[in-house]
Amino acid sequence: MTRQRLLIIGGDAAGMGVAAHARRGRPVDELEIVVLERGQYTSYAACGIPYWIGGEVDSRDDLIARTPQEHRAQGIDVRLRIEATAIDLDARRVSARDLDDGSVSEFSFDDLVIATGATPLRPDLPGLDAAGVFGIQHLQDGDDVRAALDAGASRAVIVGAGYIGLEMAEALIQRGLTVTVIDRSQEPMSVVDEDMGALIAKAVRGLGITLLTGTELLEVMVEDGRATGVRCKALAGEAQVLEADLVILALGTAPTSELARVAGLDIGPSGGITTDAAMRAQIGGAAQQHIWAAGDCVEVMHRVSQRPVAIALATHAAKQARVVATHIVGGYATFPGVLGTAATKICALEIGRTGLSTKEAAAAGFEVEPTTMESTTKAGYYPGAESITTKLLVEKGTGRLLGAQIVGHEGSAKRIDVLATAIWNGMTVAQISEMDLSYAPPFSPVWDPVLIAARKAANR
Amino acid sequence: MTRQRLLIIGGDAAGMGVAAHARRGRPVDELEIVVLERGQYTSYAACGIPYWIGGEVDSRDDLIARTPQEHRAQGIDVRLRIEATAIDLDARRVSARDLDDGSVSEFSFDDLVIATGATPLRPDLPGLDAAGVFGIQHLQDGDDVRAALDAGASRAVIVGAGYIGLEMAEALIQRGLTVTVIDRSQEPMSVVDEDMGALIAKAVRGLGITLLTGTELLEVMVEDGRATGVRCKALAGEAQVLEADLVILALGTAPTSELARVAGLDIGPSGGITTDAAMRAQIGGAAQQHIWAAGDCVEVMHRVSQRPVAIALATHAAKQARVVATHIVGGYATFPGVLGTAATKICALEIGRTGLSTKEAAAAGFEVEPTTMESTTKAGYYPGAESITTKLLVEKGTGRLLGAQIVGHEGSAKRIDVLATAIWNGMTVAQISEMDLSYAPPFSPVWDPVLIAARKAANR
Repeated sequence: MTRQRLLIIGGDAAGMGVAAHARRGRPVDELEIVVLERGQYTSYAACGIPYWIGGEVDSRDDLIARTPQEHRAQGIDVRLRIEATAIDLDARRVSARDLDDGSVSEFSFDDLVIATGATPLRPDLPGLDAAGVFGIQHLQDGDDVRAALDAGASRAVIVGAGYIGLEMAEALIQRGLTVTVIDRSQEPMSVVDEDMGALIAKAVRGLGITLLTGTELLEVMVEDGRATGVRCKALAGEAQVLEADLVILALGTAPTSELARVAGLDIGPSGGITTDAAMRAQIGGAAQQHIWAAGDCVEVMHRVSQRPVAIALATHAAKQARVVATHIVGGYATFPGVLGTAATKICALEIGRTGLSTKEAAAAGFEVEPTTMESTTKAGYYPGAESITTKLLVEKGTGRLLGAQIVGHEGSAKRIDVLATAIWNGMTVAQISEMDLSYAPPFSPVWDPVLIAARKAANR
Repeated sequence: MTRQRLLIIGGDAAGMGVAAHARRGRPVDELEIVVLERGQYTSYAACGIPYWIGGEVDSRDDLIARTPQEHRAQGIDVRLRIEATAIDLDARRVSARDLDDGSVSEFSFDDLVIATGATPLRPDLPGLDAAGVFGIQHLQDGDDVRAALDAGASRAVIVGAGYIGLEMAEALIQRGLTVTVIDRSQEPMSVVDEDMGALIAKAVRGLGITLLTGTELLEVMVEDGRATGVRCKALAGEAQVLEADLVILALGTAPTSELARVAGLDIGPSGGITTDAAMRAQIGGAAQQHIWAAGDCVEVMHRVSQRPVAIALATHAAKQARVVATHIVGGYATFPGVLGTAATKICALEIGRTGLSTKEAAAAGFEVEPTTMESTTKAGYYPGAESITTKLLVEKGTGRLLGAQIVGHEGSAKRIDVLATAIWNGMTVAQISEMDLSYAPPFSPVWDPVLIAARKAANR
């Protein structure tokens, strides 16, 4: 057997996941594994950056699951600061540039994995390149924000009130800054419905964070190359200037798929690389043998809407990496699609969601009936029992649960997993309401909040 | 329409649940509702008694969801301290005795609901009737134990290391007592497998509780009518005497079904009243119209083993009550059976279980393969990440999940609900491992512990 070469573009969750699984499955003398990583870190928890900035996580090193050195010790040839610039599918070769010395090199492959991740969205507005304007995606971003804090930054404006925006708001308020969050939408966290977003808005404001919704960014104000604030405008109002030492852009991400697109691979409507069930990239809908894609750069099928979506989340990247590696070492696996399940917390407030939101359901052609139910996280008489609000979106006619959202205090968010499991299995709310879920006073009322909501929805 | 009379025997979760639902469904001039309750409380949370004794719940009143007066204000005729003594099914009449004055009366009915609950198991040993020996079932038991604590009790022996036994151990150690728990089994909490029980034993002992497993009670020592301790014996050892001011019996319960049995109704192998899917009691397997049973006194079908079980739990009582009341007011509903899902906590240690244990699986004819996996409750780098151990029992050949057990720290127990939902839907561990569960650093590692365990089991 000749030694094969597996070339991986991108050294974070998806790319290094493939590398690690493939390494375990095939020894060094059978499979050479080369990883090209543009940055200087591998296998880091990008989702932990806000907690590191906020001080809940002690050090950057805590976020690094495995260093380049550790990967190399496992027989994985990690090349840092090397950016892939072109893929020649016919010649089975990738061109790359050294970001430090500008030198160019080429890497042949037998199997290629494209794991180029996602790129933060940046509106085309003045001032965004100024010093003091940060995204939150790479470990370096965390270093940079922490340096700004150490240098005395005291006023922050965060643009975007999604997961990262609100997690950063929490982090910076914990660090003692004055924090303003602006977002175009009427309520924060557009992955949940507006009524649930309103609950989040109330909690965010209760923390002393200024939240300006229905407000769009016009420009970043700059003096001597440094951001001094932002000019923004309420959709129905006047423009205003918010002074700031620190501007955080948290407008979401888009799949980093340009390299694949230029190489001729299919890109879907979400902007992500399309794949077959085994994560093979495609041309004209035909799967390309030995060309794989995984992680934030791909688009996947949403199991409820049956439409493609691009969801940047480590848990999908990890699963996709396992699928790709399984094939590369001679096995069989497929990626089953997603429900869009997600969770976060803003101080004591926890948020979970799964399936379709009301807007997503409408966009996919579903008619849904909403049911919202407030309950308590523990038995009402048990200390620490707090409110939990569950919203269910139920398909008209069938009673099938299509989406669910939970906003509440400690012990709320992870309950979304029960509803995700229910949606995964195509359950109706009547069926859900019958289930035998655990009960004990420290954990739930006699009827778990999830069951109460399902019961109410089933009774409609 | 003549006014109908609904007569209910038993005024706790099941009985008052039927009463309250039926009252909402039918007005007072159509349906008279009479409840005979042997005790002096209604609708109380028996499962909260340990937390009240431990001081986490402030007062007895917190455990009472609705008082007799409140029920009466809703048009429910609650008769306290009245014990039903016989049911005449042909004459549709119940005989009863006033426990205070001994007077006897009769109550006719159109619909009868038997909700007589469960009775604590008491071995036939000397001394169990002495002062200072308590069960933990009725609110009065809580009063009595609290009075004993106020009177200076400082050493407690708890017989039985199940839910109630360990919850009482936690309560009494929090109250400053010296606590010893004895149990015949080799490990505590026999609803989980012994290896998981060993984790619980370690945590219990870590709290300063003396736990003597493999030890059986021989007698309660009595002086002047008061318990002074217990004599017990290690199965492979000598008898010993444990001095105590307080002896708690926590040996589980059996359905209180004698009244139904004497009336000619079917009693199943578990000792519970058998019913059809709509909770109608039966004679010779034939459902009896307008004779219902609900709550701890009934036996229900275990959805995995397909065998009857009697599980005393408020959540089942509440669901069964709703089924019965729905029929009484002219609707249709069925009780779908149980999975034996349960949760509890002993100080910081949380325990959840669902489906079949290894012993239960064997008894029901299933062959299972166990997989045990240790993980963390949050991302490893996130503060407060603690250990969680998940054990899955998988059917040989099919890969179907038949049972699951979780022991771990904060955030562990409620994860059992995901596995309960999976078992409810007949999922295999391979299917479970593919699911889209929520991920965020404060709530789980990138792969939720449940998914990690399922993946490991699927790989076997």
